[in-house]
Amino acid sequence: MRICVINPNTTTSMTDKIGEAARHAASQGTEIIACTSPSGPESIESHFDESLSVPGLLEVIRQGEIEGYDGYVIACFGDPGLLAARELTGKPVIGIAEAAMRMASLISTHFSVVTTLSRTIVIAEHLARQYGVEHLCRRIRAADVAVLELEDPASDSYRRVRDEAKRALVEDGAGAIVLGCGGMADLARCLSEDLGVPVIDGVSAAVKLVEALVELKLGTSKVGDLAYPLPKRFTGQFAHLSH
Amino acid sequence: MRICVINPNTTTSMTDKIGEAARHAASQGTEIIACTSPSGPESIESHFDESLSVPGLLEVIRQGEIEGYDGYVIACFGDPGLLAARELTGKPVIGIAEAAMRMASLISTHFSVVTTLSRTIVIAEHLARQYGVEHLCRRIRAADVAVLELEDPASDSYRRVRDEAKRALVEDGAGAIVLGCGGMADLARCLSEDLGVPVIDGVSAAVKLVEALVELKLGTSKVGDLAYPLPKRFTGQFAHLSH
Amino acid sequence: MRICVINPNTTTSMTDKIGEAARHAASQGTEIIACTSPSGPESIESHFDESLSVPGLLEVIRQGEIEGYDGYVIACFGDPGLLAARELTGKPVIGIAEAAMRMASLISTHFSVVTTLSRTIVIAEHLARQYGVEHLCRRIRAADVAVLELEDPASDSYRRVRDEAKRALVEDGAGAIVLGCGGMADLARCLSEDLGVPVIDGVSAAVKLVEALVELKLGTSKVGDLAYPLPKRFTGQFAHLSH
Amino acid sequence: MRICVINPNTTTSMTDKIGEAARHAASQGTEIIACTSPSGPESIESHFDESLSVPGLLEVIRQGEIEGYDGYVIACFGDPGLLAARELTGKPVIGIAEAAMRMASLISTHFSVVTTLSRTIVIAEHLARQYGVEHLCRRIRAADVAVLELEDPASDSYRRVRDEAKRALVEDGAGAIVLGCGGMADLARCLSEDLGVPVIDGVSAAVKLVEALVELKLGTSKVGDLAYPLPKRFTGQFAHLSH
Amino acid sequence: MRICVINPNTTTSMTDKIGEAARHAASQGTEIIACTSPSGPESIESHFDESLSVPGLLEVIRQGEIEGYDGYVIACFGDPGLLAARELTGKPVIGIAEAAMRMASLISTHFSVVTTLSRTIVIAEHLARQYGVEHLCRRIRAADVAVLELEDPASDSYRRVRDEAKRALVEDGAGAIVLGCGGMADLARCLSEDLGVPVIDGVSAAVKLVEALVELKLGTSKVGDLAYPLPKRFTGQFAHLSH
Amino acid sequence: MRICVINPNTTTSMTDKIGEAARHAASQGTEIIACTSPSGPESIESHFDESLSVPGLLEVIRQGEIEGYDGYVIACFGDPGLLAARELTGKPVIGIAEAAMRMASLISTHFSVVTTLSRTIVIAEHLARQYGVEHLCRRIRAADVAVLELEDPASDSYRRVRDEAKRALVEDGAGAIVLGCGGMADLARCLSEDLGVPVIDGVSAAVKLVEALVELKLGTSKVGDLAYPLPKRFTGQFAHLSH
Repeated sequence: MRICVINPNTTTSMTDKIGEAARHAASQGTEIIACTSPSGPESIESHFDESLSVPGLLEVIRQGEIEGYDGYVIACFGDPGLLAARELTGKPVIGIAEAAMRMASLISTHFSVVTTLSRTIVIAEHLARQYGVEHLCRRIRAADVAVLELEDPASDSYRRVRDEAKRALVEDGAGAIVLGCGGMADLARCLSEDLGVPVIDGVSAAVKLVEALVELKLGTSKVGDLAYPLPKRFTGQFAHLSH
Repeated sequence: MRICVINPNTTTSMTDKIGEAARHAASQGTEIIACTSPSGPESIESHFDESLSVPGLLEVIRQGEIEGYDGYVIACFGDPGLLAARELTGKPVIGIAEAAMRMASLISTHFSVVTTLSRTIVIAEHLARQYGVEHLCRRIRAADVAVLELEDPASDSYRRVRDEAKRALVEDGAGAIVLGCGGMADLARCLSEDLGVPVIDGVSAAVKLVEALVELKLGTSKVGDLAYPLPKRFTGQFAHLSH
Repeated sequence: MRICVINPNTTTSMTDKIGEAARHAASQGTEIIACTSPSGPESIESHFDESLSVPGLLEVIRQGEIEGYDGYVIACFGDPGLLAARELTGKPVIGIAEAAMRMASLISTHFSVVTTLSRTIVIAEHLARQYGVEHLCRRIRAADVAVLELEDPASDSYRRVRDEAKRALVEDGAGAIVLGCGGMADLARCLSEDLGVPVIDGVSAAVKLVEALVELKLGTSKVGDLAYPLPKRFTGQFAHLSH
Repeated sequence: MRICVINPNTTTSMTDKIGEAARHAASQGTEIIACTSPSGPESIESHFDESLSVPGLLEVIRQGEIEGYDGYVIACFGDPGLLAARELTGKPVIGIAEAAMRMASLISTHFSVVTTLSRTIVIAEHLARQYGVEHLCRRIRAADVAVLELEDPASDSYRRVRDEAKRALVEDGAGAIVLGCGGMADLARCLSEDLGVPVIDGVSAAVKLVEALVELKLGTSKVGDLAYPLPKRFTGQFAHLSH
Repeated sequence: MRICVINPNTTTSMTDKIGEAARHAASQGTEIIACTSPSGPESIESHFDESLSVPGLLEVIRQGEIEGYDGYVIACFGDPGLLAARELTGKPVIGIAEAAMRMASLISTHFSVVTTLSRTIVIAEHLARQYGVEHLCRRIRAADVAVLELEDPASDSYRRVRDEAKRALVEDGAGAIVLGCGGMADLARCLSEDLGVPVIDGVSAAVKLVEALVELKLGTSKVGDLAYPLPKRFTGQFAHLSH
Repeated sequence: MRICVINPNTTTSMTDKIGEAARHAASQGTEIIACTSPSGPESIESHFDESLSVPGLLEVIRQGEIEGYDGYVIACFGDPGLLAARELTGKPVIGIAEAAMRMASLISTHFSVVTTLSRTIVIAEHLARQYGVEHLCRRIRAADVAVLELEDPASDSYRRVRDEAKRALVEDGAGAIVLGCGGMADLARCLSEDLGVPVIDGVSAAVKLVEALVELKLGTSKVGDLAYPLPKRFTGQFAHLSH
């Protein structure tokens, strides 16, 4: 099985980290193809960044359909372009926020999310509401760490994420922590040991969900709003998508 | 006051129609600048189409900030890119779905939406949920009309929209009808006469809401998640957005 | 266009203030008729006060229909008698709580309300729930200011409202403040400057929404539960309403 | 124990019927004082009617406090003035809609309401939402019977209520029926026999809840928003309420 | 009337206390039969304890049907086995959590629950959500008292419950307190005097609701999912239930 | 990895079928131990049946902890005893309803459930609400097939399930079908071919989720309400659980 894990931002060191986490999570026999979006922002910290990451990641999926991948992971905690991506393929496409939130709900009755900058909190809140887990998700918290600080070994980003997670345990009564950024994929294990509760990294979780769906021979339903897009004319930078 | 009304698809006849509806709704002293997205699909009938319409419409808003427009309307019923657009400006930005649904809630306790193809129903359902009007919105209905059929005078699209709206009155007990596509902006008056209930066109409604906010000197809050995007590096087709 | 702005309490100084705010918000060509309720409490700070303000304000609307006003504003943050008022007319009727909350939702993803006495918090909570904005409204806060203190230039009511609003920004992460009393209509501008975020006064907001609906030729739907009341016999102090 | 059962409309034959149902439900030792509102509409079939029934019923409660009644029932399915009434007294005040809906939820996982005219459906829908039983209440149905038709022995109102209730069983899968009008208080027993499911009359249910609260020595909380109204000046027809 | 009040744990001193509270609440003419579950845990402080209390309490109800009791109370705040119990009988069956929460909603717009150990909070949260009162229930609080400590006169459990309840008044703005354990049935009166707000004990409340339903001749609906269980074969320790 | 798949009813032919489905879904290297509950009903079609299935399944898990299984599946669509089971172990425990509903939400924006008898619909409705997928789950439908009919090759149960599923596609607009009974585990593949949409069997889905969690080294959180039950005295048929 070949799973394409897409980093929707353009920072390749983050792609490497995400790919590594994905490979670590993957079953034997699963090949992980970690891709960097060919266009867009170097980090995703706003609705604007998110919007501009989508065309690149959809392009990766279009190419992936030619490659014949068995499934896709969108490795940004805002799950950008998730439903659009699903329209492009009959294979499973999983976002890391949905993967992490759903996995958390299987092992704890209450979890909190620790994300990066406070301005991204609302994005996670919208997703929790959309995914129907707002009664399970105690609180979305920001560690006040910029996404690219997570790439900088000299930063104290780990300490800030851990401290915020500790506050979640004490103040929110959380029984599990969801990591709110693809760039935190390498922190789960260490954090779980430090905190003594399950810590869920969405990249790993999404890989397992794609594997599960593929093995169950379940793919994106092509009946209803996730059917393939109707062929039509595109203009400008997207003219090549016309057919 | 100058309001930029953006047709996020690339069909200029629809831009003309939307512009006309906007001008008809505008107060004296309001100038309507109707813009066609410089890139993207000719019609928006899927999550995919929607995603690819966003970069173009954000570009229009970026240019609009240079022009110094006083506010913006996003004239597609999926309200694509709405929060991203709001990050780019301190001026008001209104989507036509939110405008229409909120206006409808002011004049009726129950309304139904009539949209184009059934595959777009879920998009409107998500918006109704996000905007907190799902208890007011009786049902989202599809007239089974492709967006571009609305541009074709020879089609019987009006009849199909009207018949679906009639069913909404009888079957849903709706007291008002919301038109679920920017391309229906010219149908509201005639339909309202045929049906005997208020019919809300989101383009007109959004223009009035922008005017209202501008006159109240209220603009998009720059405190919190709608603050201007952080400057960062962009790559590929969006490289020009780096700063 | 002539808009009747009704102060549902009987304090004429408050009517003056509300009228002034309404006139300031009104477009050129809009005439504001500010009316004081002919009967009821001097201030509205409880469910009881609210209930007894309603017959007076409905009387104003009945008279207004004879005058031929184009629309109505109910200038009390509990939106008393809103649906009853809508039954009496095919014109738009807007409550200032609904106006302020809906306008706030157009410019911020999270707002807080600052109202007067803590006992009125539950009234605003019920409205937020009824209007479907409870996920946008972070918190309803009381400044612990009696309504009539707002009329007393010697009181420190402004300071208390401002301090509570500041707490909303810090503690709630609010991006905008909604003023929770018609008697605060004169505070919005100054407060917005002091706080650096949009501050929404419902009186102004409601005037603009009525103007918008009138210009869109949209009025209260007379199909369904907002149809004119059935003629019937009334007794006692309301005997004159029989027909 | 003396319970004051208030018919908020002014039709005394309905007061008689409500009083009879209340007495039938009351325990030995409970005295039922059935009161007709001194002012307002002869029947309550709209938001307008409801609003104008409230001052009269609040007057009855004010007098009741002098009489020293032990509790109150508001015998109209819209529960008009319920929270205002609670402010006036430390005794329990129960509305028949809340009583019926809460009792129904104790004996069935799904119930439907059969009310009078279709324009009153939305009133019951709002209450179901406010009381948090919208997931238990399958549907609010109108039998298309005017309130005063229930007073006319020559009308076929019973048949129409029964037929609508039967549809509720078949189409909604309801396991119990809630009668949606105080004027149906005499129909419960017969209807229950005809239908073979529990049929809940709110008047009887409310009497039992008042009795229960009184015997538990539980009354309306005077801490928070249900505290006694603040003394203040009233004007016009309500001037006598000043203190 | 004979009401069977079931203590689903096996601690008879608690049964005595519950029985006493029930008798104190019961009307003249009501006989209270207080039963201890024949099997299961000595206290219920987890989902596991709850599950193992259910067979015993269902057995009590089966026997009760032979005895011909008129109704049942399940005297544990988790309402264990409530819907299963209802299937076994056409009589009313009331859980003390639902009784207390619904009674509280009749006398206050906001209440808080004080329960025993913090690990049981989630059980009460699930019930509040299931019963549709989560918007009325400000917060579920734990006094950090083990259930059996409530049986120990030497413990300071009363003080801890009272202190937590005081925090609920100050921090949550609660207008009433719901006691979150059957073993607190004797604390309501004293606590109410100490706190100055209504304090609701579910055992007493449930007895009154059963009495009310019985007097209204309303029993569990046997149409739908609460119909008697289908006869079938049982195995192992439940083999005697086969028929 | 060894996964214990528990059939909570006592019909061994159903255990065989469930085991087969589980084995078919399991990855290489996963051993499936299919267990029949040692006590309880032969099929689970009511709240009563469900309650009596729980002690047996908890016993299986207690034994399983001694065996050292890596995770558990509860193979009944009511997810009986799920939270209690989770308290007993730090391993993952997955119910087939939650597994199926969550998997369905990853591949379709709308699904419907087809279950057995109509009296079980409410059980699935409660779960959908509890799991936060009620906005994704269009409708719970009953095929009117008793559970044990699914074991009878001579019955036309397949046809009835398929016909109900077809109605879900046409009437509900469902894009995927969730099978609402462990005894339907063998129907998914054939049904999916007949219907042309994804059909989700919860047994297979749950096995994959357990595998995923185990491979992610994620187990049930022992912090909060899912901590191991407190040691205490048990009486009667559960006396052996004392410690």
